[in-house]
Amino acid sequence: MKTYFVAEHAAHAPPYEFFRGERVSAFEKPERLDHVLAALRQAGHPLHAPHTDSAAVLAQVHTPRYLHFLQSAWAQWLAVDAANAQATPFPSVWATRGLRSDVVPTNFIAQLGLFSFDNGTPMSAGTWGVTKASADCAASAAADLLSGTERQVFCATRPPGHHAGADFMGGYCFLNNAAVAAQALRHGGAQRVAVLDVDYHHGNGTQSIFYERADVLVVNLHADPRTDYPFFLGHADETGAGPGLGFNLNVPLPQGTDGATWLAALDVACQRVVAHTADALVLSLGLDTFEGDPISHFGLKRADYARLGQRVAALGLPTATVLEGGYAAAELGHNAVAVLAGLANA
Amino acid sequence: MKTYFVAEHAAHAPPYEFFRGERVSAFEKPERLDHVLAALRQAGHPLHAPHTDSAAVLAQVHTPRYLHFLQSAWAQWLAVDAANAQATPFPSVWATRGLRSDVVPTNFIAQLGLFSFDNGTPMSAGTWGVTKASADCAASAAADLLSGTERQVFCATRPPGHHAGADFMGGYCFLNNAAVAAQALRHGGAQRVAVLDVDYHHGNGTQSIFYERADVLVVNLHADPRTDYPFFLGHADETGAGPGLGFNLNVPLPQGTDGATWLAALDVACQRVVAHTADALVLSLGLDTFEGDPISHFGLKRADYARLGQRVAALGLPTATVLEGGYAAAELGHNAVAVLAGLANA
Repeated sequence: MKTYFVAEHAAHAPPYEFFRGERVSAFEKPERLDHVLAALRQAGHPLHAPHTDSAAVLAQVHTPRYLHFLQSAWAQWLAVDAANAQATPFPSVWATRGLRSDVVPTNFIAQLGLFSFDNGTPMSAGTWGVTKASADCAASAAADLLSGTERQVFCATRPPGHHAGADFMGGYCFLNNAAVAAQALRHGGAQRVAVLDVDYHHGNGTQSIFYERADVLVVNLHADPRTDYPFFLGHADETGAGPGLGFNLNVPLPQGTDGATWLAALDVACQRVVAHTADALVLSLGLDTFEGDPISHFGLKRADYARLGQRVAALGLPTATVLEGGYAAAELGHNAVAVLAGLANA
Repeated sequence: MKTYFVAEHAAHAPPYEFFRGERVSAFEKPERLDHVLAALRQAGHPLHAPHTDSAAVLAQVHTPRYLHFLQSAWAQWLAVDAANAQATPFPSVWATRGLRSDVVPTNFIAQLGLFSFDNGTPMSAGTWGVTKASADCAASAAADLLSGTERQVFCATRPPGHHAGADFMGGYCFLNNAAVAAQALRHGGAQRVAVLDVDYHHGNGTQSIFYERADVLVVNLHADPRTDYPFFLGHADETGAGPGLGFNLNVPLPQGTDGATWLAALDVACQRVVAHTADALVLSLGLDTFEGDPISHFGLKRADYARLGQRVAALGLPTATVLEGGYAAAELGHNAVAVLAGLANA
């Protein structure tokens, strides 16, 4: 399967994150993608650099002030103190209910908080370049589907994107690659698009970006937000709003869900995609549903990923698959290749 | 001046907080109040334990779910892992725009995020007891003013309260003592109450609690939120809403403001209090406007605090003064005593 990747992805490499107030090594690390790329090469999937600039579509998915913030963030951080080149910026205050989001503070740490909903999305010097190039991969995949040169394209990119909203980052995500692919498909002529998000964690960013639109169906299959990140979105009663009412489906599942139960829920999700009569599909492929994932609690095995690929392929839609989470780094590549094998053998 | 205090305040003593993602020793530490109490004793101010239960008023100021959370928080933290007795809980995800605040997660760390807007409000085992007793001090002060037994009462309490809203903590604050005093005054018969907040940081919690009410005027004199905590509230264009329109005044001042400029702004604030024709006043006394404060950027000197006291006393209102911030611990007591001297010598 034609695959896009960013050769210099390791330029985004914040060294640590926080867990319950304690510093821990970053789970979203370059090693993840190195394993994926090695497995793809071994399985004979051709790897390509992106050929399409996502700038125009990014401006349709994200707000100008947020894009400006992301592009300028590292320079602002260094302007606070040149010694910050060796440090990692973290926000400390967030614009929750009762507080205002309409005024951008001059204080950089405050800007970090304004444009995020967690303290789990650290940046490094290369973050903007890598995330922008990853969005270019998503735009390239959409372009290939639109031109008809490919029916299936994979974006082997990091960091992931599905927690990033129109003007906020979170959950390791800065630019929403799935939303870029979906919007690029719409912009390029697809009348109806579906996004199917199978990451362990609810794709709150993707949901919020398309929540009031009927042209992009968003279906999420994920751990119950009462117990799992991102906690504050992903409930079953979120079905869209305004013109988008009925065009969002959440299927939250309890911790401990095994492959059989998960695949049954996937069937429900796929039925909703079929009913949408979409012209194209975007698959947000998180692999942290794996039984060996260090921060998640589902029990999928390798064979389940081939079945996932088969069921998605059976939808018969031109499909852009973008990599989201998955933190059992050494297994990540094999699981991704299993999905691609299933996608190719429906 | 009659002063209420909580003898066991040191039971609230989280050891550290975060600054730009780095652990630092807690600025809001028991030593602060030890200095204040020593200076009060030396100056001959009588210290009393609170005599009034604030529970009924707390239920008018804070939401049931938030009070339940605060009371149960430490037990929940221990239930996650008994070894947590030696650790400090910090949130990691916040319910910012686009996310829901209406569903309380079962995950305790998520609850911490739902009920806060920063990661600068750590708890320890004794937090609920100390904060509840501090609110009792505020209720006791209000009772003394209502009964007419006192015209001036001081609450020498910690942690501070003015960043705490109806259902969120933040900025070292859990229960809003100033709001408790103001609400207790209203509940006990005062028709109009004014809150004057002179802390370096905007009292976003107090503002938000009374923002739609005309019976409690809130006036804040503070550092510009574009540059300073809490960043997302405290702008001059916030003047109240609904029935409360016109009953909120913010006077943001730039970093570097000296005593003379600050006192001129205080006159503006006091004129608004006079115009409210209040029956009683609550003074949120932050002393982090001091030139030696380690985390703030105004230039007030000791003599300015006596002038502050004099100008507030000149309003001629029964006044409950509650201690808020101030982190130059060794100077805090002397500065507080200077305010009380001014209040007594108008």
